[in-house]
Amino acid sequence: MKPVRVGICGLGTVGGGTFNVLTRNADEIARRAGRPLVIEQVAHRSINPACDLTGIRTTKDVFEVATNPDIDVVVELIGGYDVARELVMMAIENGKHVVTANKALIAVHGNEIFKAAHEKGVIVAFEAAVAGGIPVIKSLREGLGANRISWVAGIINGTGNYILTHMRDEGRAFEDVLAEAQALGYAEADPTFDVEGIDAAHKLTILASIAYGVPLQFEKAYTEGISRVTAEDVEQADNLGYIIKHLGISKRTGDGLELRVHPTLIPKERLLASVHGVKNAIAVMGDAVGPTLYYGAGAGDEPTASAVVADLLDVARDISTEHRYRTPYLAFCGVTDDCDELPIMPMEDITTAYYLRLLAVDRPGVLARVATILSEEGISIEALIQKEATEGELVPIILLTHRTLEKHMNEAIRRIESLADIAGSVTRIRVESLDEQD
Amino acid sequence: MKPVRVGICGLGTVGGGTFNVLTRNADEIARRAGRPLVIEQVAHRSINPACDLTGIRTTKDVFEVATNPDIDVVVELIGGYDVARELVMMAIENGKHVVTANKALIAVHGNEIFKAAHEKGVIVAFEAAVAGGIPVIKSLREGLGANRISWVAGIINGTGNYILTHMRDEGRAFEDVLAEAQALGYAEADPTFDVEGIDAAHKLTILASIAYGVPLQFEKAYTEGISRVTAEDVEQADNLGYIIKHLGISKRTGDGLELRVHPTLIPKERLLASVHGVKNAIAVMGDAVGPTLYYGAGAGDEPTASAVVADLLDVARDISTEHRYRTPYLAFCGVTDDCDELPIMPMEDITTAYYLRLLAVDRPGVLARVATILSEEGISIEALIQKEATEGELVPIILLTHRTLEKHMNEAIRRIESLADIAGSVTRIRVESLDEQD
Repeated sequence: MKPVRVGICGLGTVGGGTFNVLTRNADEIARRAGRPLVIEQVAHRSINPACDLTGIRTTKDVFEVATNPDIDVVVELIGGYDVARELVMMAIENGKHVVTANKALIAVHGNEIFKAAHEKGVIVAFEAAVAGGIPVIKSLREGLGANRISWVAGIINGTGNYILTHMRDEGRAFEDVLAEAQALGYAEADPTFDVEGIDAAHKLTILASIAYGVPLQFEKAYTEGISRVTAEDVEQADNLGYIIKHLGISKRTGDGLELRVHPTLIPKERLLASVHGVKNAIAVMGDAVGPTLYYGAGAGDEPTASAVVADLLDVARDISTEHRYRTPYLAFCGVTDDCDELPIMPMEDITTAYYLRLLAVDRPGVLARVATILSEEGISIEALIQKEATEGELVPIILLTHRTLEKHMNEAIRRIESLADIAGSVTRIRVESLDEQD
Repeated sequence: MKPVRVGICGLGTVGGGTFNVLTRNADEIARRAGRPLVIEQVAHRSINPACDLTGIRTTKDVFEVATNPDIDVVVELIGGYDVARELVMMAIENGKHVVTANKALIAVHGNEIFKAAHEKGVIVAFEAAVAGGIPVIKSLREGLGANRISWVAGIINGTGNYILTHMRDEGRAFEDVLAEAQALGYAEADPTFDVEGIDAAHKLTILASIAYGVPLQFEKAYTEGISRVTAEDVEQADNLGYIIKHLGISKRTGDGLELRVHPTLIPKERLLASVHGVKNAIAVMGDAVGPTLYYGAGAGDEPTASAVVADLLDVARDISTEHRYRTPYLAFCGVTDDCDELPIMPMEDITTAYYLRLLAVDRPGVLARVATILSEEGISIEALIQKEATEGELVPIILLTHRTLEKHMNEAIRRIESLADIAGSVTRIRVESLDEQD
């Protein structure tokens, strides 16, 4: 069989990993693809000492790969938005399949890219863009293809999970663990994308698009980071039987789709609660299959390369079938027009349970006033912990509520904060049971 | 697009679930398949009250479905060996694709079936045969297609996991929990297939075949059940930081493949240790991706139907691509001839760590005699617990060893059992760290 000719753009961490996996496991990959995958050209700016490029055609110009007539598939691993977008659009324009690990590009420009790919009859594959090596895109798109998906909830940012894991295990503060993660290379010098949830929101946007067949709508995702989670909250959650994880959550409701990234209390007995350190995991609930979970490395050279090469296997199949394989790649709203109208819900319309932590002046009646406000807003209390305090000091009050509308909680918090007995602002962390009834 | 015409054979638990999922989610499935899937005929012997067969062509004769010229794909859900095998071979002979949930049939007769399917140019798909609704076959075959797999370890029998979970949580005996599981319908009246590991060995055989590209070799699998695991062992394992799970394990070594089902101590912090009740999970280690895990319902009507329908989506793609989709279904040794020679290793040649429990007469020197035997067999001790006993009573001794050859352990146990100080036989349970170095 004629080989599939691969052009790799970018030879950094993931590019180098992809080069090495394709080279090392060439025989195994050829058997699974039904034909060899050969690296025809590599575009890179600096040397990756992990890669032996002997005999490989190289260039510094990524656009040379996109126009190279000897290349069937362009692997975009340069990252960023502008050049990556131009590269991908040019590759499509030249009739080449595209494989990318670029979550930001897909989440923000995916609709335009898929439309162009659809018109040109090529695949744009992006398994590596979500949760590194975990084959969750393929599982959602094909393995769970029988199901109406009711929710997806995932630990999809390794840096955030590393920080929360160490905060819990060692009782340390956020800033302290972040500094350590930066020193170890698990967090960037500017950690905003990871700790403020932007990276997770990119990935969640992509997961939701595949799970529900809706267009990518990153701009409508609610994004809240972990930088305000305190060691105190981690400990209180633990006392209540919960663990705090930074989750991307998307639920199908009667009113549309919830699409939100935020710190979340989940019961300790959920499998997601046992996912520690930099690892990722995605829980998916389908109406037929029930709860499922996919776990593995969410980043790193060869884990991500594993997903890039899995996409190349799909591309090889599409080439082998004269471009008739790609059906599952086209089942998007925005590309095809046959899916449900599922608007992304504004955050104030979502329903969830809440953990609240407030600091009260230790005066008779303060608890009653807080409880009255919650009751008046239609919010019922599931658990309450009031710590003992010495006379005159501020007392922390911890509350767990039952499920309620976010807008009711917003109003309740506004009213509680205006009480004379309450000091500062109320800490609010959402709580998800992630059980089969959700 | 012309619909894919499905014939369902068997309308029991899984057959009924498949019928209902195909009916209920028809629109969603059609979008993902790129064409509708219609139920053309159902063969069943008794009524399934969960299914509304109005307007469906039915028969009592499964072979009518296998020869029906209006059917593209036969879904075999009757179970058992003989009739199922005849049905599947007849369907293939008539040029029909086959989807089956029958693990015993595939594990025992798969090589013959795949050969016939290969010659006839049809797909035989069996995602539902392993771990119910978890898309682990597709993940191994496609999602992890870049990887050289080094090991697979799974909780692949829900009944066994239910029993071990309750033994641990409630400190109860095997027989006691088994009786409860039978009363609740989680265990058969004759529980042999489940609790003695035969069902798990069928599934492990299939997993190993896909993971390593080797022929199905069920007859070479080592199979040990959980009926001799005691509440005492469960408790001692817990004290040592382990949990006992009934695992199917297959490892690639320099000498071939290990293929074994047995109770296993695994560290509590492994994700597999948090898989409770009737749920299944499979951990897979790839050279590029590292450790991954797939979790969900291993049985049940609609979870299994989810996998059956996922296979039907693959069949639909093969039909859409004029039979050129099926490449990944053909990458078997025995069908194609281009894979490594990987003999299944005899059990005495495997290497693992061990938990030993012995009852000793409380006399000076007994520990020294046991330690000497282990040392002479080249086995080193990692941990040792000797309980206090009242004068003249038997004392339990618990040992954890480092990794050693099974044949050396067999010899050590034979010698220990022959000591005058040791009462009865030595309990031996294998220990697996399941870490990234394994």
